[in-house]
Amino acid sequence: MPEPLVRFQPQGRKVSSKKGRTLLDLASEAGLNIESICGGAGRCGKCKVIVRSGIGSVTPANHLEKSTLDSLELASGARLACQATVCGAGHIVVEVPQESQRGHHRRLAAGTERKVALDPAVRKFVLKLPPATLKDLRADDDRLIEFLSRKAKWPVRISEGVHRHLPGALRKQDWTATVTLFRNQEVIRIDPGDTSAELFGVAVDIGTTKVVAYLVDLTSGAALGSESMPNPQIPFGEDVIARITYTSKNQDGLEKLQTAIASGINNLMLKLCEANDLTPDDLLETMVVGNTAMHHIFFGIPPQHLAAAPYAPAVRTSLCVNPSHVRLNMYPSGKVSSLPNIAGFVGADAVADLVASGLYDDRKIGMMIDIGTNTEIIAGSRDRLIACSCASGPAFEGAHIKFGMRAATGAIERVWIDPESHLVRLRTVDDAPPRGICGSGIVDAVAELFKTGLVDPSGRLKSVDGSSRVRKGKKGLPEFVLAKGSESSTGEDITITQHDIQEIQLAKAAIFTGVSILMRRLRLRASQIDRVYAAGAFGTYVDAASAIAIGMYPDVPVDRISFIGNAAGSGARMCLRSTKMRDLADKLSKKVEYIELAAEKDFQSEFAQAMFLPHRDISRFPGAASRVQRSS
Amino acid sequence: MPEPLVRFQPQGRKVSSKKGRTLLDLASEAGLNIESICGGAGRCGKCKVIVRSGIGSVTPANHLEKSTLDSLELASGARLACQATVCGAGHIVVEVPQESQRGHHRRLAAGTERKVALDPAVRKFVLKLPPATLKDLRADDDRLIEFLSRKAKWPVRISEGVHRHLPGALRKQDWTATVTLFRNQEVIRIDPGDTSAELFGVAVDIGTTKVVAYLVDLTSGAALGSESMPNPQIPFGEDVIARITYTSKNQDGLEKLQTAIASGINNLMLKLCEANDLTPDDLLETMVVGNTAMHHIFFGIPPQHLAAAPYAPAVRTSLCVNPSHVRLNMYPSGKVSSLPNIAGFVGADAVADLVASGLYDDRKIGMMIDIGTNTEIIAGSRDRLIACSCASGPAFEGAHIKFGMRAATGAIERVWIDPESHLVRLRTVDDAPPRGICGSGIVDAVAELFKTGLVDPSGRLKSVDGSSRVRKGKKGLPEFVLAKGSESSTGEDITITQHDIQEIQLAKAAIFTGVSILMRRLRLRASQIDRVYAAGAFGTYVDAASAIAIGMYPDVPVDRISFIGNAAGSGARMCLRSTKMRDLADKLSKKVEYIELAAEKDFQSEFAQAMFLPHRDISRFPGAASRVQRSS
Repeated sequence: MPEPLVRFQPQGRKVSSKKGRTLLDLASEAGLNIESICGGAGRCGKCKVIVRSGIGSVTPANHLEKSTLDSLELASGARLACQATVCGAGHIVVEVPQESQRGHHRRLAAGTERKVALDPAVRKFVLKLPPATLKDLRADDDRLIEFLSRKAKWPVRISEGVHRHLPGALRKQDWTATVTLFRNQEVIRIDPGDTSAELFGVAVDIGTTKVVAYLVDLTSGAALGSESMPNPQIPFGEDVIARITYTSKNQDGLEKLQTAIASGINNLMLKLCEANDLTPDDLLETMVVGNTAMHHIFFGIPPQHLAAAPYAPAVRTSLCVNPSHVRLNMYPSGKVSSLPNIAGFVGADAVADLVASGLYDDRKIGMMIDIGTNTEIIAGSRDRLIACSCASGPAFEGAHIKFGMRAATGAIERVWIDPESHLVRLRTVDDAPPRGICGSGIVDAVAELFKTGLVDPSGRLKSVDGSSRVRKGKKGLPEFVLAKGSESSTGEDITITQHDIQEIQLAKAAIFTGVSILMRRLRLRASQIDRVYAAGAFGTYVDAASAIAIGMYPDVPVDRISFIGNAAGSGARMCLRSTKMRDLADKLSKKVEYIELAAEKDFQSEFAQAMFLPHRDISRFPGAASRVQRSS
Repeated sequence: MPEPLVRFQPQGRKVSSKKGRTLLDLASEAGLNIESICGGAGRCGKCKVIVRSGIGSVTPANHLEKSTLDSLELASGARLACQATVCGAGHIVVEVPQESQRGHHRRLAAGTERKVALDPAVRKFVLKLPPATLKDLRADDDRLIEFLSRKAKWPVRISEGVHRHLPGALRKQDWTATVTLFRNQEVIRIDPGDTSAELFGVAVDIGTTKVVAYLVDLTSGAALGSESMPNPQIPFGEDVIARITYTSKNQDGLEKLQTAIASGINNLMLKLCEANDLTPDDLLETMVVGNTAMHHIFFGIPPQHLAAAPYAPAVRTSLCVNPSHVRLNMYPSGKVSSLPNIAGFVGADAVADLVASGLYDDRKIGMMIDIGTNTEIIAGSRDRLIACSCASGPAFEGAHIKFGMRAATGAIERVWIDPESHLVRLRTVDDAPPRGICGSGIVDAVAELFKTGLVDPSGRLKSVDGSSRVRKGKKGLPEFVLAKGSESSTGEDITITQHDIQEIQLAKAAIFTGVSILMRRLRLRASQIDRVYAAGAFGTYVDAASAIAIGMYPDVPVDRISFIGNAAGSGARMCLRSTKMRDLADKLSKKVEYIELAAEKDFQSEFAQAMFLPHRDISRFPGAASRVQRSS
């Protein structure tokens, strides 16, 4: 009997069928990219495939598939590739519909980076030591330390893993060797000869949804490349709270989450190495940022207490551990460092944002907003900084939105609706035929629908539309047709549903509640905010005027909004390059005052008011309606 | 077919036969102790057994057995239990002759211990912290460190493994917790509630031949027990040089040796724990001493360079590493510390000897001699200390001596020979019928044979003896019958052979060459040495007068010789109990001047002269002949 195969159509790729593997796995093995926002958790429904033959060799649809796919789809063989698992030995033919194929992802804008003087924690020095002779019987460690102390004028110690390399490294090239010092205090590596031209580090931003790693040449400070992936913890819980719950409900939950993120980062680092002709042994320091829960889990620290009042983190201060402690595959005596956290829900990523924004050093008032599954906001100036965190959820990443998708080929990223004719103009990623809608497109759409009056301040989509773009969708609720099947790449109408609009209202209300409470603490009106730093991938691509129009950002002139891209990544790279910046980060994390929104007595009423478009108290958005001049 | 068995006679113990296992292994499984000095390396010949039936199920004699056993023995089924391996499925009957049964070992004298004020590096403190509330949102680490810093008045940091336990330990008993500090600087453990009554450490002396571990209660300083074993590295090489060679000739040689010693120590620690109702997690610090090669191998540091001029060690300074770094099974954030080394062949064990002897603090001149496979000698006073190392070999432990055995039941440990009648009086361990001869007995025997004139100054055994105790042995060489078969427990004559005497001459000459060169450096005559500290198990039991008579110790009045027992172990325990002592050890290791004997130009001639009994230059032993008044 010939080896059973899985064949993917229309690509025609084949891969040998293996019991226990999901179709998503096998597609990846066959070199196909199937879309998956939830990371294989069976929640986003984006990995829909159709089993055309051999359905008997695939597990029956499970409850996740039954709740995501409708009965008609199921009857026609549709399955979630991440759930459908090979269970028999027959051939299987799988069709991958166009909307499930992952296109080219819009490249994440590198964060704005302020220039820092190169002053990394790891540095190399080439030494020519006097050789050991019968007249100079000094031990290798004495010989090295005495030499370094004369040069360095401060005490230097040898890290525990380095002693093993001392005798070999010193003698191999005739007592010429290169030492790597960490913060000028600790020898973390010794190599024979002169290897001073090679010095590499990695900065990692562990987002709840996305993880990005950057390779940095620490001899020049140059960024050599980046790699990203969905956070491999997503299958254990989509958001921070779900993952924390997972660790408390499962005895080995923390262990599993820690292993998942560590091996994910190891993969990214390996890819970065391969692309640059390096090996993991060349990586001497990894600088990690992430929200407090991601930080705790990465370091193996139980995060349960983050989820219950008073939400105190276990660790605020910056950590510095051995790679084996967090199972990272890099130079064994290298260092894994983190930036400090601020509070249970304002983590090292927010500190990195702050470092990248320069807000801490400004005389004028600024506000940094990093939108993600959790949104961190820091406001103030060099005199005073206050921070809070908002549970904004993953809607802006396309989750829970009917045609939501990531910002990849064919994603609608800009929407204009003619106020008279209600004609729709779209812009898509790579100018491809529309396939779905990404975060910036959704915000645009809601802003435009509101401005044209198709959506009222409470978020209700009006059921009458001159151009008949509004129609009844599921459960009789109205939906707005953004792109007709005739123009879309899938042949299907792409719509914005009433439910989608509500998801966006919830998300933006969560954010504005934080904005509003911080402003009140600082006794600020919007007009007094000199600069708003929009951080994060979504923050960079969302149209500022639209964001103000729906009441997500404070109502400032649009030109006061700076897009600083993935600022958490930028801040991490800056701190990887400069010990001064990380010392600054340590100071900032103590200086920033944290406000626990859940403990604010008017949180609920603030939130309820912010659910309106742009806000129940329209006086807080005086300029919004009149000023809107859309960029294009 | 019934399960094949191995039956041991005369004990009648049975054990199921397993292919690939040695008879030594299986005997141990059956609860029998078969003697083995070389640790199963096939070198000492002490584990001789006779296969009475089923020889076809045992591997044929290998070259080690053929060189150790004579053809008559081999023909009658005699085998080395450590080499003979089960290879078939039949029943096997093995006779264990009485001389191969391991008796009760003489308990190693606990080393003399000078009293030190209790001041261990690990200390526990019970804390009652203010709880986290919505008004006091400090992170757990800030809360702890701020509390400690107020109390301690010096900066305290949290060790990388401890953060994981912070949130649980603080909250479990309502913010009362016990922290363990290392050197008052680092939190290495946190437990809920008050655990201050439990604080344990282990001191380990890694001898080339024997490894001893001591359990110490660090709340009181009390020694709770000790466990010992032959060094499990012996199968890879009997002495230091052989083991170093093993690491250079085998790619994974160092790895194997390191694993062997680590798992051996783990066994000792487990036994100590079980005997005291503890678990390895209760062990917070391990203080390790050993000679430089044992030290390097234990820490995984390649020792090859110790074996070639200029013999510079890789590491002199004291180390302090995580248990996982050296694979010790104890509290994971605990510490494994070592004392410093002095030189390639004067290691941390000699530093421990020095600490235990008090020599470093004396105005008068002293000399510390720690006899082992390598013998370390340190001479001087508080003003100046010099050290050397001598390759004295394992003869005093019974190896390479025909009837040599360890100081266990039936070992001849004292010998008196009547100068007239040549009648022999013996004392044996446990007063049991003689079974062999241990180190102190051999030295006594050689001293007595020399004093009675039966052995001449060159070491030659005279072939005529009034009592006909001297007879011709193998290869026609004379041997002296110490115990006749009628008195011995084995029915066999126990003899001292010409070869045995030569082994003792080589060993004592190695030691005295060191003594002599140190004396010359310090411009000392023997009479100026105020005290000789005899350290190590052998040094404690050997008769001082006999040791002087054969020319092993310098010729001082016998009452100037102090027996300080296993001083390396004592010094390790003292340093485990007191950080002051370990700081002193660090200073001493730099202060002691090391003399490389091999680089001394008259080493060869000194050695040749010291081969004589007591010395070729008899003027160096003026008192020896006249003063000898044997203790009994």
